[in-house]
Parts: sequence; structure tokens; C-alpha cells
Amino acid sequence: MQAARHVRFMSTSRSLVCSHVHAQKHFLRASTSRAQSRSVASTAAAASQTPPPPPPPSQGRWRYFLQTLGRVTLVTFDPSKKTLVILGSGWGATSLLKGLDTSDYNTACHTFNSAIVVSPKNFFLFTPLLPSVAVGTLNARSILQPTRYLTRHKERQVLVIEAEAKEVDPVKKTVTLSDDSEIQGQISSTTIPYDYLVYAVGAETQTFGIPGVREHACFMKELHDAEKMQRRFLDCVESAAFPGQSDEEKDRLLHMVVVGGGPTGIELSGELRDFLEEDLKSWYPELASRIRITLVEALPNVLPSFSKELIAYTERTFKESDIEILTKTMVRKVNEKSVVLKGPDGVEREVPCGMVVWAAGNTSRQITRDLMAKLPEGQTNKRGITLDDHLRMKGARDIFAIGDCTASSYAPTAQVASQQGSYLSRVFKLLAKKDKLEADLSHAEISEEAEKLKKQIDKIKLKPFHYSHQGSLAYIGSDKAIADLPIFGREWTSGGVATFMFWRSAYLSTLFSLRNRSLVAGDWVRVKLWGRDVSRE
Amino acid sequence: MQAARHVRFMSTSRSLVCSHVHAQKHFLRASTSRAQSRSVASTAAAASQTPPPPPPPSQGRWRYFLQTLGRVTLVTFDPSKKTLVILGSGWGATSLLKGLDTSDYNTACHTFNSAIVVSPKNFFLFTPLLPSVAVGTLNARSILQPTRYLTRHKERQVLVIEAEAKEVDPVKKTVTLSDDSEIQGQISSTTIPYDYLVYAVGAETQTFGIPGVREHACFMKELHDAEKMQRRFLDCVESAAFPGQSDEEKDRLLHMVVVGGGPTGIELSGELRDFLEEDLKSWYPELASRIRITLVEALPNVLPSFSKELIAYTERTFKESDIEILTKTMVRKVNEKSVVLKGPDGVEREVPCGMVVWAAGNTSRQITRDLMAKLPEGQTNKRGITLDDHLRMKGARDIFAIGDCTASSYAPTAQVASQQGSYLSRVFKLLAKKDKLEADLSHAEISEEAEKLKKQIDKIKLKPFHYSHQGSLAYIGSDKAIADLPIFGREWTSGGVATFMFWRSAYLSTLFSLRNRSLVAGDWVRVKLWGRDVSRE
Repeated sequence: MQAARHVRFMSTSRSLVCSHVHAQKHFLRASTSRAQSRSVASTAAAASQTPPPPPPPSQGRWRYFLQTLGRVTLVTFDPSKKTLVILGSGWGATSLLKGLDTSDYNTACHTFNSAIVVSPKNFFLFTPLLPSVAVGTLNARSILQPTRYLTRHKERQVLVIEAEAKEVDPVKKTVTLSDDSEIQGQISSTTIPYDYLVYAVGAETQTFGIPGVREHACFMKELHDAEKMQRRFLDCVESAAFPGQSDEEKDRLLHMVVVGGGPTGIELSGELRDFLEEDLKSWYPELASRIRITLVEALPNVLPSFSKELIAYTERTFKESDIEILTKTMVRKVNEKSVVLKGPDGVEREVPCGMVVWAAGNTSRQITRDLMAKLPEGQTNKRGITLDDHLRMKGARDIFAIGDCTASSYAPTAQVASQQGSYLSRVFKLLAKKDKLEADLSHAEISEEAEKLKKQIDKIKLKPFHYSHQGSLAYIGSDKAIADLPIFGREWTSGGVATFMFWRSAYLSTLFSLRNRSLVAGDWVRVKLWGRDVSRE
Repeated sequence: MQAARHVRFMSTSRSLVCSHVHAQKHFLRASTSRAQSRSVASTAAAASQTPPPPPPPSQGRWRYFLQTLGRVTLVTFDPSKKTLVILGSGWGATSLLKGLDTSDYNTACHTFNSAIVVSPKNFFLFTPLLPSVAVGTLNARSILQPTRYLTRHKERQVLVIEAEAKEVDPVKKTVTLSDDSEIQGQISSTTIPYDYLVYAVGAETQTFGIPGVREHACFMKELHDAEKMQRRFLDCVESAAFPGQSDEEKDRLLHMVVVGGGPTGIELSGELRDFLEEDLKSWYPELASRIRITLVEALPNVLPSFSKELIAYTERTFKESDIEILTKTMVRKVNEKSVVLKGPDGVEREVPCGMVVWAAGNTSRQITRDLMAKLPEGQTNKRGITLDDHLRMKGARDIFAIGDCTASSYAPTAQVASQQGSYLSRVFKLLAKKDKLEADLSHAEISEEAEKLKKQIDKIKLKPFHYSHQGSLAYIGSDKAIADLPIFGREWTSGGVATFMFWRSAYLSTLFSLRNRSLVAGDWVRVKLWGRDVSRE
């Protein structure tokens, strides 16, 4: 299925774009699985039928007519431009959107849009700082960037749809999506066609089927997870402060168990320790000394992706901070008021606790499993989507997959997804060029010209994706961070307060916008001056 | 029932207080309705029995023993000191806590506490700025102040309990409370005795029994109301942006109905208009011009507490801002996708809308109605608690009631509650003095001394509460505010941009702490620089 029209703007002034979009009738029908072919004339008719919206447009009828006429005459078919649909708004999708030349694409659905972004969240979340939100070091909104902030000032408008992708049909080349939020319009699900699909839906939290995890543990993946954890943690503290609570019950309520010794679990434990030392000791002096943090990891050590020195350094720092690390320990069950652990001795014991935070890895989303099941030949890896060297999904040449939904040799990190996204933005530049040449070729009448075009097409070569590791960073609490950095081919390791300053500056510079940078820096100053807030919202 | 013990501190150093509180065993038993009499010896025994908490205290045994001994010898009974229980953490309670001399009181429950504060929220919420939170002008946490920030550094520790008061027994003089939050300890409800009770539980939103209000409307009273409204509003915008939505449905989704023409409704409409003009027009150009705000008020005009000029000025400003005001209009029903209005012509019509915000007044909470029912002679006003001139609840001399739970000649405003709270802090100073003298009198052996004490007691006179109106302020959007200020006995009215600056500085100075002042001011700068966030959390 091909994208429909090629549109050139005479002007990109806001009023023009604005009134223009008004003139668009709903080109997408609910549950329509293919783009409807419509003539230029029907577009004009649709535009003239539009009833004036309640605060009526301030422009005169003549001006409106002339503008419409002007636009219609400029609408020309350009079947070489394709429809690009991007599923997701995380690291991969955002990085791609940042680099994408939107003028290379147009959608089959909306006349004046280029790419389509579909995500249940209308924002990008800077996930590495989520543990800071969970203890109130950062405001939630400081690490959000609305996707429209990125797409709004692109050369051609990007259609952002807040909806959850429900099904991908790699044969018909369509995506079915649905608005599952609390408030829904008359139309809340639809099917859109794509020429190229970027599949960047991420993953969901892996619970390994352990009973009670989904019911009783807090995750640390989405913004609402961090907010829930903050609320619960302070709820534990307040419940422990309830008059008449026994010492034993206080100790239970104030025992926090973090499962997962990866960067998220480590950073969360470190942040919790900071919250305890820097704030709770002042405001809950009678309880603070009872708060305990235990980190549980199934492997023989925490932070498997870091070097041995840094692992030892982290373990030492945690010991000084009274954070207990239990390695080679499995979680067997999570109850409402306890967690059942199986230690290296093979003995199961029930540990009372107030809260369990689950930061123990990823697994594929349902939609990913469904999509893979439709391509049984190429897709057999249970961990996620198998790719070729150019990040194409094996078995579906027009689907590119990036980030945590894929199974590659790289770790499921923001860094990998981000590099994949920016690689794809370069790929799509070349693909657009190639598609244009191929369209020209199909219309070429003279064989000489065709020969020339063929040569040009052959020249376009996509380089395979190559991941360049920039290093690993983690905050471990007490104003200390650790860093594993490859410099001139050698591994350079560093830990301590200076590394913490480096961690902060690295994170600041990785934040996509100056706005977010200043918000995060402002929050750091706020916490330095005023401490963290202990209100339980 | 009298409070139990009189405690003097030799030192108020944190470590002392801290380890001290550790030493306290749970003096309050669940569902115990009276204070248990315990000897000094039993306190010492309890202290020595305390098992060392998991991260053990760093002090040596000898030091611990000496400290305990020192403290025990200082614990002396002072039956003249009474137990003060404060229900609530809003304007009234916070203002009282700010002025209260905690050394005048001790509780029957916890040896080293003075007053007891019970509230389902562990923070004070600066309600007048709630509409600003609802559109993202302010961060939620900028207008919160944890109650412990206020009580923590008082001369004697104040026991803050995060729980909901369920029942007040004015005969037994007890309050039953319960922790209804998600996480509860073994003990989650208890009954505490009081000598004096300050009843400042506020009110809940009045729905006048209109069908659908509770199910479909957003309130604007608590923090979660503002957050819910923000989420819903952006949900409406995103649902309207869903591809294929008809123009009619877009108009419905983007029609916001605010019910109630008081300051809350007016400020919310103004803030919504700012959000629309300053942010949504940039990020949703294709939808922004369809967003409509309608303000519904049953009375003949909005802002009944303001002067006529300012009402006219507000109506004019709203007209310029395209905010429709429907006066003399009643809401008959709220549906999921519409609101049924009855206009001055008596005709009912169904108006489609995306969201209804309900800011239409207060009504008594269940606990207040229950308490009033127990005192049928003095309490007959359905609006709330009837008071005498000293803010005592009629029919219960030991209960003082302040704020929105009362029915007085004053408007239910923050200003009134705040002045009542600070009046009570002076009352409790005098009451403590009187109680001390009366206790001395009961022990006086020489009649001459008794006569002298009697005279001193007679001299203590409580002045009746007098409300001094400092003026009314409201923000009406477009960087304009209105102010009605009584200056030298004359009413001075002002509206416009200069008044907006005054509004800001007045609100800043009313915020209880420098911390909150700097956070709110910081948010204003943030919005000026970066605009409001359109992420739907």
C-alpha cells in the first residue's frame, strides 16, 4: 500500500497550518484497514463543508476561499513519498524523531502530516532518573518531554496519536490502535496503513511468573510506578508512626526490599538511603534509625555490566550506608507484608517488609509476541524481535525494530535504543532518496535516463548498525557514582564524589532539551536548599 | 480525664530526643479509651526493655543508662497540663500550630509529646493556588508543607498522626481514629483521650444531591482533584486529536464547563484560558481554537463577595477571553458526556462537554454531622457547627471548632480559618495559665494564698474572637487580578495587571514558609521561560 499525496506548503505560518487542519475532515474512519483513495476535488469539497467551530475563525470568507483554492492547486500526487509510522515514544522513537527529516515522508491518512507517532504516553520519559523521582529528588515533570515539543516545529507536521497499538499486520501493512484512556471520543480505535513501520514499543517488567509480584510489588519502569513507590514508602513511614505500633511491626513497615541488582535497583537503593539520611532523620527522628534497605540479586554479584573494581566499590559503599546486599538470592513469592527469599544455602525464609520494589528485568509485550507469532520463520527468539544488520525485523522487510523490544547482543539500555533511533533517522534519509529514484525510474521513458537512475540507486548503500559503547554510569547514593568508560580503547573506571559530578553533568547533557536540563538542575538546587518533601500526596 | 505527666527536658538536642523516643514503648493501645496510669518506674522499665533496632544506636551502654536515669528522675507529674488534640491540617489547624506554645501541654498518651495532630493528610495544602496546579502553572509539591516541618522544631515534640478521625465522643472526651490508607500496620485504629479538642476538619464538596456530580465531575478541593483535572483535561485534548474524530465530537471534548462563580471557579477558568492561550495554541494549533470554557453560576452574578465594579470588570475580561458566563443557570444533571442546564428562562437543555469541574460550595462532613447529632440542644444549624464568641462548640465547652466545618457569619475562607487558628493559639496560652493556677489552687493550704490565686484566675479574661477582613483577591486570567481591599475604613477596589502583581506578592507572603515561597516563585519563572507542560501523566 502506497502513501497517497505529495503536498507542498507555500507558507508554514501558524495561521495557515492552523486553519488548514480545520479544513481537514476525518480522513481516517474507525476500523478502516486501508487508506481510501480520494481525489483532490473531494478534499476541496470536504474543506468547504466544514462547519465553523464555536469560536469562529476570524478570517473573511474571501480570504478563506482563496487560501483553500491556493492550497488545492498545490496538492500534487507524489507516490514516491511513503508513510512512516512510529510506535512508541521512548528512547528509540524519540531519538529517531529528533533526527528525522519529515519532509521526506507523507502519510496516507492526513494530507498535511508526514510521519505518524503512536504511543499511549504523549511524552518521552527520561527513565534513568526515575529513581530520583521516586524519592522526591526530582519533580516528575522535570524528566518528561511532551513528544509534540519535538515534532511541532518540524518542517512538516507530525501526527502524534495518544493511543495504544493493539495489533500489527505485517502482510496488509497496517497497525490497529486504540485510545484506552479514561476519556474517549466517539472514535477511539482505528487502523492505519504504513509503508515503513518503526517498532519501538519497549518491553514490560519481567516477573518470571513469581506469585504476588504483580499484586504487591512496586515496579520502576513508568512514571506512575515512581509516584506509587513514593506514596507507598511514605505510607509505610506514617503507618509505622501510628500510635501503639509495636517495635516489631515498625521494623516490618520500615524494611524496604529492592529486587534486582542492575543500575535501577542500585540507584533506587542509593536514593532511598539519601532520602533517609538527609531528610527522614530530621522529620521522623524516632523512626529513621529503624529504616532498613535490602537489595536482592539472583546473580553472584550486583551490576554485572560493570567492572570488578566498581562492583567491589559499590558493595563497600552500600555496606557503609547500611544497605544490605543479598546476592545469589531468589525471590520465591511476594506477600502483602513479606517476601519469601531463597538464599545461596537453598533455604527459604519469609522476610517481613513494608514494601517490595521490583526492578528485575524486561520481557516482551503482548503485541510483540503476537507480531512475532505472525512471522514464525524469522522470529523464534523468546527474548524479543530478531533483527538483520540494518535493524529490519527478520521476515518483514518494512518493519524496523529498535530498543527493548528487540533481542540483540546489546544490553537493553537507553544508550543502545538511542543510537538505534539515530541510526534509523539516517536510514530513512537514504530510503527516501532511493524511493524517489525508483519512482522516477518507473516513469523514465528514455532508456539512457533509466540507466542513469539505476546507477544512482545502486550507489545507495545502507551501512549496518554499529553500536558504539560510550560507557556505563550509575549513582550509588551518598553523593557517589561509578563510571566505566572506554577511553582510547582502554576501560577507565572511576567511583566517588567526583564521578558523581560527572554523572550529573553527563545526565544533564543527555537530557534532550534545555528546558529539561534547567528543570533537573533546578530540582537539584531545590533539594540542596530545602531537602526532599515528606508529604504523602 | 486529665493528662498525665509533666516532663522537663534538660537538653533539647536531637540525639537526646531521638533516642528518647526510641525508649518509648507503645503507650497507646488500640481502642483504649482512656490514658493508662503508669508510674515513673514503669517508664524506666519500658525504656530498658526496648530491643535494639536493626541498625543499632551508636552510643555505648553506659551513656544510654546514664541518659535514661537522668530523664527518669526529671519526669514529674504535672496534672495541670492538659492534652490538646487537633483534628485537621488545613488553614485553621496550621495557623494554630504555628502560634501554639507546645510547652503548655502534654499528652496523656506519649510521654514526650505535647499536642496531637490528627489528619488524613500529613501536609498543609495552600488551597488558593490549587487552580494553578490544575493547569500546570505550579508543581503540586510547591504548595504543600508537611505538617512536621511546622511541628518538628517546637519546644516539645508534637505527635502527628496520619489518620482519619472517625468519631468524637464529647462525653467521654475521646476521638476514635483510623489509618485508612493503602498500607496499614498491625494497629490501624485507636481511640485517644483529649482535654481540649480543636475541631478543624474542614468540609467536603457540596453536590446538592444533583445526579451525576460525584460520578462524572472533577472537584477542586484536594490536591488529587487538581491532578485529576489536569489529567482529564489533557485526555480530552488528546482524544479530540485522535484521527477521524468528527468536528462535532472535537467540539464536545474540548468544551470545559466550570460550575460555581466563586473565586475557585473564576480562577480556574482564568488559568484554563492562560493554558490555552500561552501553551495549547502552540502545541495543538489544530485544536486550540475549538477549546471553549463555560462558567455556570446559579446566582445573578459571579463573585458575590466582590464589589460591583470588580464583578463587571471580571465579566468584561472573561468576554474578551472568550469565556462564556451563564448566570442564573442551574445544573440539573451531569452525564458522562454532557451537562443538563436550566437557564433563567426555565428551559432545560443538554450541553455536550468533555469535562465538568465542580467548584460549587461546601457541606459538612459525616463526622461533623455525627458530632452535632450528639449535641442536639446547641447544634441545630445544618450548615455546620454553631459556636459561642470564643469559638467553643455550643454544648461542648472543651471543643473548639474553626474553619469550614463551622457555621458562622463569616464566609468559609482561608482568611477566616487562619485568623481563628491564630486566635486559638492565644486562647490556649491563657487557658494553660488558668489551668495551672487552678491546679495550684486545689493544692493551696493557706487561705490567703488561695485568695490570691483566685484573684489571678479571675483576671484571666478571654476576649471574644473578632474577624478582621483584610480584603478579597482573585486571579481572573490574562495576567489580571481583582482586589477588594478595606483601607482606612474605605473599600478600595482595583483590577488589572498591577493588581496581578499585588495578587502574586500577597499570595507569596501568605505562604507559610520561605521554602514554599521560593518554590512557587520558581514555578512562576519556569512557566514564563518554558511554558506549561502538556504531558498527560
